[in-house]
Amino acid sequence: MTKNIYDLIIIGAGPAGLSASLYASRYGLKNVIVGGISGGLTSQIHKIGNWLGSPDISGMDFTKNSTEHIKSFGTEILNYLVDEINKSEEGLFEVLLSNGNNIKSKTILIATGLKHRKLGVPGEENFLGKGVSYCATCDGFFYRDKIVGIVGGNDSAVSAALFMSDIAAHVYIIYRGENLRAENFWLEAAQKNKKIEIIRNTNIKEIIGDKKVEEASLDNTHQGKDSLRLDGIFIEIGFIPSAEMLKKIGIDLDEEGYVKIEKDGRTSVKGIWAAGDITTGSNKFKQIITAASEGAIATSSIQEYLRK
Amino acid sequence: MTKNIYDLIIIGAGPAGLSASLYASRYGLKNVIVGGISGGLTSQIHKIGNWLGSPDISGMDFTKNSTEHIKSFGTEILNYLVDEINKSEEGLFEVLLSNGNNIKSKTILIATGLKHRKLGVPGEENFLGKGVSYCATCDGFFYRDKIVGIVGGNDSAVSAALFMSDIAAHVYIIYRGENLRAENFWLEAAQKNKKIEIIRNTNIKEIIGDKKVEEASLDNTHQGKDSLRLDGIFIEIGFIPSAEMLKKIGIDLDEEGYVKIEKDGRTSVKGIWAAGDITTGSNKFKQIITAASEGAIATSSIQEYLRK
Repeated sequence: MTKNIYDLIIIGAGPAGLSASLYASRYGLKNVIVGGISGGLTSQIHKIGNWLGSPDISGMDFTKNSTEHIKSFGTEILNYLVDEINKSEEGLFEVLLSNGNNIKSKTILIATGLKHRKLGVPGEENFLGKGVSYCATCDGFFYRDKIVGIVGGNDSAVSAALFMSDIAAHVYIIYRGENLRAENFWLEAAQKNKKIEIIRNTNIKEIIGDKKVEEASLDNTHQGKDSLRLDGIFIEIGFIPSAEMLKKIGIDLDEEGYVKIEKDGRTSVKGIWAAGDITTGSNKFKQIITAASEGAIATSSIQEYLRK
Repeated sequence: MTKNIYDLIIIGAGPAGLSASLYASRYGLKNVIVGGISGGLTSQIHKIGNWLGSPDISGMDFTKNSTEHIKSFGTEILNYLVDEINKSEEGLFEVLLSNGNNIKSKTILIATGLKHRKLGVPGEENFLGKGVSYCATCDGFFYRDKIVGIVGGNDSAVSAALFMSDIAAHVYIIYRGENLRAENFWLEAAQKNKKIEIIRNTNIKEIIGDKKVEEASLDNTHQGKDSLRLDGIFIEIGFIPSAEMLKKIGIDLDEEGYVKIEKDGRTSVKGIWAAGDITTGSNKFKQIITAASEGAIATSSIQEYLRK
């Protein structure tokens, strides 16, 4: 029976999960990854740019290299979703997959990341990676001297606008309300910045272009026109942590819905660790490198726990 | 004058410093790296093995790729040591280099890493990467079914021995004293482990071999012989943080000599951040991935600070 019990089930196949599996295999732990899409959101990035030593790598190639690396240890990636996590009578965890299978393990790592909140307008999905992005730090660099729009009014939106003002020729902040909800510091900096123009009380109705983004149609007029000429649209309207399943098994989340972790990646539930964008770790800086680092740190702790 | 003032001087050219420079350049910060050896200790690793997506990369190649990446932004690496850090009257930092030059900046990142404490015996330097290692997690994997010796008696030494017992055929712990200084938990686990043999009151006198490590001569007899047949020697006798210079400018260190940092990498001195192995970050797990992550987190914070 014990040969069917994993030391570690990793839920999430993004950088945190892949890195965790790499470390787990090197520690000799029997581990498996469960994740809907190998590479997670990273697989969608046009050019990563900030993965040290690989300047031009695409999200697709990064995912390919990483999954090959972890599979070289014989580790499987099961491309299913997780429906339930339960604690069994023997003190093991039982993970119910979307294909109906049940797998068991001694420990669990949650590395499911976050979902970008979508605008839900026509063109948004089609132009993903062709002018539509959910991450200015990741993709901003490709818009040197271009015209970009940032959608949103929170800290991330305004800081993304400031970030882009160093790169792009002109930056619109497009916000559905009257008063941006960002910190004073960000607001003052944005208002002083000559490259940034704030369009209030306005929603994007559609993202339009041929091969890449060229224009956004608006539900309000801006300088007499109901459309905006744009090369890039950064959608910064927040993340949706998919933490329902985690609450059910008693994992503590912070007020924003992130999984609270200790320095070693432990959650509030014994035997369950978390790593990557879904956690409170890395000062909440959401990067491939920080996620991969958290995966490594958690696995080091899991390895010590399993020896005890 | 201001064109000669950097936004950020990064002290240390290992993974933390290189990653920090990469992020700094992408943020548009004028930055420079000062470090004795490009790549730092990482450049010495035979095969890294746990850099996600690059299974067989050597420390040399990793360093080459990383330095090329950061130089692609026009960033310089100055291969000098830092003699002094001073605060100037204008509120800037002045960094005195070992070539006599003085460079100025608004912020500083300390990423100088740690030095492995050396045994100081003949053969130790010659066989570095050819059987001699200072990191079981990094290099242990290459000793499957081999005979290895761990030198030391602290937590790292005993946990390295346990780690190696899953990989190697036989593991010696070679300790100069009678009673190992590791936690009970580690000691009990090591004593129960049939692959681990503890040799007490013994020092290695010389490391011997042809092209790679074959033997260690001892200053005491073990089973009637004063030498030990070995394929690998892991020296785990601690690290030496070179923090003298940091104390002088008032940076708080913890009781072990590591630089205390906040979640965003700030030290106790305004305008100075720290990242990588020299810090209290990443649960003190010392890996390339954790160092690179800390470099990124600190630079994100530096970038926000400079905008204010």
